[in-house]
Amino acid sequence: MSQNQEIQKLVDGVLNKHTRYIAKAISFVENSDYKTKKSFLKTIFPYTGKAKVIGITGSPGAGKSTITDKLIRTFRDDNKSVAVLAVDPSSPFTKGALLGDRIRMQNHTTDPFVYLRSMASRGALGGLSEATKDALKVLDAAGFDIIIIETVGVGQSEIDIVKIADCVALVFAPGFGDEIQAMKAGIMEIADIYVINKADRDFSQKLFKEISDIVNLSPKQPKPSVLKTIATNAFKESGIELLKNEILSYLGHIETSSNLTKKRQSFIESELIDTVTKIMIDKVLSNQNVKNFFDSKTIAQIYNKELNFYAIIDKIVEAI
Amino acid sequence: MSQNQEIQKLVDGVLNKHTRYIAKAISFVENSDYKTKKSFLKTIFPYTGKAKVIGITGSPGAGKSTITDKLIRTFRDDNKSVAVLAVDPSSPFTKGALLGDRIRMQNHTTDPFVYLRSMASRGALGGLSEATKDALKVLDAAGFDIIIIETVGVGQSEIDIVKIADCVALVFAPGFGDEIQAMKAGIMEIADIYVINKADRDFSQKLFKEISDIVNLSPKQPKPSVLKTIATNAFKESGIELLKNEILSYLGHIETSSNLTKKRQSFIESELIDTVTKIMIDKVLSNQNVKNFFDSKTIAQIYNKELNFYAIIDKIVEAI
Repeated sequence: MSQNQEIQKLVDGVLNKHTRYIAKAISFVENSDYKTKKSFLKTIFPYTGKAKVIGITGSPGAGKSTITDKLIRTFRDDNKSVAVLAVDPSSPFTKGALLGDRIRMQNHTTDPFVYLRSMASRGALGGLSEATKDALKVLDAAGFDIIIIETVGVGQSEIDIVKIADCVALVFAPGFGDEIQAMKAGIMEIADIYVINKADRDFSQKLFKEISDIVNLSPKQPKPSVLKTIATNAFKESGIELLKNEILSYLGHIETSSNLTKKRQSFIESELIDTVTKIMIDKVLSNQNVKNFFDSKTIAQIYNKELNFYAIIDKIVEAI
Repeated sequence: MSQNQEIQKLVDGVLNKHTRYIAKAISFVENSDYKTKKSFLKTIFPYTGKAKVIGITGSPGAGKSTITDKLIRTFRDDNKSVAVLAVDPSSPFTKGALLGDRIRMQNHTTDPFVYLRSMASRGALGGLSEATKDALKVLDAAGFDIIIIETVGVGQSEIDIVKIADCVALVFAPGFGDEIQAMKAGIMEIADIYVINKADRDFSQKLFKEISDIVNLSPKQPKPSVLKTIATNAFKESGIELLKNEILSYLGHIETSSNLTKKRQSFIESELIDTVTKIMIDKVLSNQNVKNFFDSKTIAQIYNKELNFYAIIDKIVEAI
């Protein structure tokens, strides 16, 4: 089978929502360079843009996976299909350490309208990879109504999520001492909804109040909502329906006010710049004239001050 | 005065360690584009590479500023000159919120062999800016023996610090619930020294043990050390001298084993690639043919699926 035929088969499989092909397509965009996957992405592009994308982020241990698990159920109760992309920091040292959490979500695996997938983020604490954005397009083209992207709130992926999700929920739990400080430091601007999970624990009311006070200062429109959930215990479970309704209400609001259009157009613009940049960097760094400047001898000479760093920059730019 | 004369004056001022000119030079590299500051950086480049660069990072509230403050004193006791670059997340919403901490360091301001400077990181949670690296060169050329870079451990700057510091210390305090989880998630690979600050508090021994257990698994050579400090109270103060000795011992070790050379050569290589990339991106994005593709009409057409994202990428790459 030619490569074109392979790709057409992948496209057909995705558009027909065949789980096996969705999985194959995500692996394909994850493992291929831009040139290889471009024609596939180009073919599915017209089918994208329909899914609502929800970002769930927060510190490890705050209960994101459990909340996601419960959200899947409430969306399924509304007869909506749901795909989840769980983005894990990958590290050669701690490989897969966080994936244990995902086991909690396994109770949906027999439902054909639920699709779960774990992906690695770019580097140990890096941002969302290009592959995550491409996987999102695969799931979108496959016609899922809701796509949940769950990222661990350490490092850049927590920030990147605002560039791909229509609505971002930031999950807290009582007893995480630096949360409030981190919010003051800027994380504050990430979320559209704040969730105090494990609300049956001590200090949850205090945390709720502190976060509400900070959110009240937010210039964001609509003002982010702050709500409490208990997602850890089936018996005590509460707040999940409320969370779903807040998500839908937020999405409804930005859709009516055209802010969803603005948001998504800014996502397109960012991705356009990022993609062009990446292609240019690859071109430049594969240029043999440029490569010569990155050899260990030149680097050693710069280190020893035999060559001037800035003179070498001039030469590289000339060589391009 | 011509621009060349201005720059020569700045260079002379920095090399003669005049505080006013150091401050001016840092503002200059902070506020100028590459083209404007290049000749200045080129002129000081041969005078750089002598200072030892120490990175101090950790969660807000862990006590980084206080530790830095005490470290300044112990290095001054050894007759070493010390410059501190404190990198703060900047955000239009929380502007300057964290700068209050810096006040603690003000007791060194009358010492001419101590220089303190706050800088903004790139965006709210972004990484270390190019300006931070350039400011480091200014301080290095000015002949400071020790340069401490203090970054708030939220977001990318925590990761970036390993690309500019010879030795990185990660500061923890008891009661920061997600620390251990975050370490598992990869932060682990950042540090050369782990500091449990506020060691007089409950659970500090537990934290010490947990971190020691994780560090024992580290493939890093030399194995990172874990130590306790109390930096908050002059009366109870302890561990600072030990921390200084661990830093010097680590630096001595990597110097003898040539790992410092390797580390610094990899910093040069990264910065070479980053600088070339930045120049190329600026060139590409200022190209009128390319600019035309980033107008709101094209973006809206991509959004409406009247144009295919990947076809536009092809056109932009062709136009370059």
